[in-house]
Amino acid sequence: MNIKEYMSTLGKNARAAASSIAAASSGTKNEALEAIAKALDGAREALAVANEIDLQAGRDSGLDAAMLDRLALTPKGIDAMIEGLRQVAALPDPCGEITDMSYRPSGIQVGKMRVPLGVIGIIYESRPNVTIDAASLCLKSGNATILRGGKEAIHSNRAIAACIAEGLNAVGLPESAVQVVETTDRAAVGEMITMTEYVDVIVPRGGKGLIERISADAKVAVIKHLDGICHVYIDGQADLDKAFAIALNSKTHRYGVCNAMETLLVAESVAADILPRLALAYADKQVELRGCVKTCTLLAGESAIKLVIKSATEEDWSTEYLAPILSIKIVTDVSAAIAHCNQYSSKHTESIVTENYTRARRFIGEVDSSSVMVNASTRFADGFEYGLGAEIGISTDKIHARGPVGLEGLTSQKYIVFGDGHIRV
Amino acid sequence: MNIKEYMSTLGKNARAAASSIAAASSGTKNEALEAIAKALDGAREALAVANEIDLQAGRDSGLDAAMLDRLALTPKGIDAMIEGLRQVAALPDPCGEITDMSYRPSGIQVGKMRVPLGVIGIIYESRPNVTIDAASLCLKSGNATILRGGKEAIHSNRAIAACIAEGLNAVGLPESAVQVVETTDRAAVGEMITMTEYVDVIVPRGGKGLIERISADAKVAVIKHLDGICHVYIDGQADLDKAFAIALNSKTHRYGVCNAMETLLVAESVAADILPRLALAYADKQVELRGCVKTCTLLAGESAIKLVIKSATEEDWSTEYLAPILSIKIVTDVSAAIAHCNQYSSKHTESIVTENYTRARRFIGEVDSSSVMVNASTRFADGFEYGLGAEIGISTDKIHARGPVGLEGLTSQKYIVFGDGHIRV
Repeated sequence: MNIKEYMSTLGKNARAAASSIAAASSGTKNEALEAIAKALDGAREALAVANEIDLQAGRDSGLDAAMLDRLALTPKGIDAMIEGLRQVAALPDPCGEITDMSYRPSGIQVGKMRVPLGVIGIIYESRPNVTIDAASLCLKSGNATILRGGKEAIHSNRAIAACIAEGLNAVGLPESAVQVVETTDRAAVGEMITMTEYVDVIVPRGGKGLIERISADAKVAVIKHLDGICHVYIDGQADLDKAFAIALNSKTHRYGVCNAMETLLVAESVAADILPRLALAYADKQVELRGCVKTCTLLAGESAIKLVIKSATEEDWSTEYLAPILSIKIVTDVSAAIAHCNQYSSKHTESIVTENYTRARRFIGEVDSSSVMVNASTRFADGFEYGLGAEIGISTDKIHARGPVGLEGLTSQKYIVFGDGHIRV
Repeated sequence: MNIKEYMSTLGKNARAAASSIAAASSGTKNEALEAIAKALDGAREALAVANEIDLQAGRDSGLDAAMLDRLALTPKGIDAMIEGLRQVAALPDPCGEITDMSYRPSGIQVGKMRVPLGVIGIIYESRPNVTIDAASLCLKSGNATILRGGKEAIHSNRAIAACIAEGLNAVGLPESAVQVVETTDRAAVGEMITMTEYVDVIVPRGGKGLIERISADAKVAVIKHLDGICHVYIDGQADLDKAFAIALNSKTHRYGVCNAMETLLVAESVAADILPRLALAYADKQVELRGCVKTCTLLAGESAIKLVIKSATEEDWSTEYLAPILSIKIVTDVSAAIAHCNQYSSKHTESIVTENYTRARRFIGEVDSSSVMVNASTRFADGFEYGLGAEIGISTDKIHARGPVGLEGLTSQKYIVFGDGHIRV
């Protein structure tokens, strides 16, 4: 197979389908989502068979348990996909929304209409459920999609794609509105991210390595989600009970997620009041601590903590552990905390714990991250928690979309103008 | 000079200055704009001397009259720059605007705050007044700027840069918030569009060739403004007086602008009623007409028109004339008009003239262009006319900004979250 030709054909098909999807009513799109849910439900056996082929190949090639776990399509996983489709159907349709209509001195009336982006390319790794998640969000937002999943999941993805095609067909939408790349050749990714005439935006979902590689080579715009080196700063005027709860929750609620705290900053004036208590709680949960010199000195007396504390190195401040490890730094004040965040954070999510109005305002204003919080756990940085209904990713970029990206992030706005024969004079 | 090192230094300086500019109050930014205006006013002589060096070099190297005209910095041109600075100062500051704050079921309050993009690189051709236009919009929107003007205007741009530095200095903002690239080496552009660590977005201002070259090589996001192949469609249920006025204004108000009409589409049912009258008016203004077969046949009887009408070729439908030339096509109905626009237009601006509600709604909904109009001249597609106050360009892209780009297009939004000790459960 000539990969360049194959991908161009997918691209042309997608471009052609994009206008049908863009013109489809909310009702038709929702019916399609429901029809896909029904098709999945009716194809449980075929999905299990296809998934078993992938799992067997995975076991044969020595994939580790975590990878195999992500690859598995259990009956519960299929339930979740079906439920996800119905949730997306229940979300308001962003397309066609008209806002900001106002009259200008010339007499014309100007505003904006929300419209789909066109064709969205999704590149992801092993989890086959992303096929449904991504397809449903793109479909609801009126876009055509080209999905390129991991090669380990190719049979599962094809089986899911057949259900999507069945659902689209059932409501008279073109099957090529959602296409799964059928080849596992890596050259397909290279084509997809450079064919600017057919693809409007690329959403990579996966590790930092994947996203950096794609961003480096892409000609198509990329909605990037890089790392999450998130901070909580406990201010000198923090309510220490809130601080305790937020610092513990931000780190230990889940370890492998991008919105988990990786570095705790503590104001010098309250360090002795809060750190020993917090460190014991972390120790209790087997969280390894890596402290600055002051932190290590302060905690040296606590025998239970000695077991889990190490000296932090410069590298620790810019490391996303995604694990039960936490770096801790004692800082002089809110200015130092803001400076540390802006230097070391990955601009994902930062939170200040304080009762001080001016410091809260400064932190919110000056920290340059996609989410900035006051007295809340960093774990709230999430599309569902923010009310987007679902998310296709969290953008650590500033262009186009920043923070959790939901349906709106998959759309654009065009200007619309109403006149009554108006001309420029 | 090592261009790579030089550009990196500019980049580092800009990145450092970006946080000062982002943190500057609206008042300080407005004072800076006023101080720059005063500095320009006080430097009229120096500006004239510098500009004369550029003009002389231009004349020596054989620049044509139009190029020399764009290069000239007349006293009136300096007045316009000063006036422009004051207009930008008078615009509302987009930075810090908080919108969409709402409570979520978890109890957190979530919304968005508008923030600067960071560092904006502007690449433009000969007109030195762009230096002030671009610098003022970037400054007002809280961004640092690196300006790379045409080599023909280097002395003028340096003189203007000195005034900008004086103004920034006067209010205590860092001079490197606005930097003019001092070298005319083309390698500087190559560096600027690839140094993603220092530049957040590139705005090229110039011809299609310049923008295509930059987009092809850029690693930094580009706000693209390609061509304007704009259409007016006169529907079978148009008010023919409105149609006459709009078709004439869209083509003949100015010829060399991107929002001028290049192709007129006319519904077959009214072609005989409106085209002869319109063609005579165009002929009167020496507009060359290039018609489809039906148009040529229809107009064959008019001797005054015979002089200016030719047969249109396929190429005409995708040509931006930027000149007194107009292609005309008779189409069956609104569906054919929409299909023609979506195939041939550059997705800049399209307008329908109709009294029919359903056709107006279809055209607005289905035409995929940055501005879609009903009963208004395409010439209204403009930042000033839309109330943006000023524009840095018109984006023909869908990502980030679409249509006229004003201060808001130079910003992003971060999520802000207010809690009272909230944690994820």
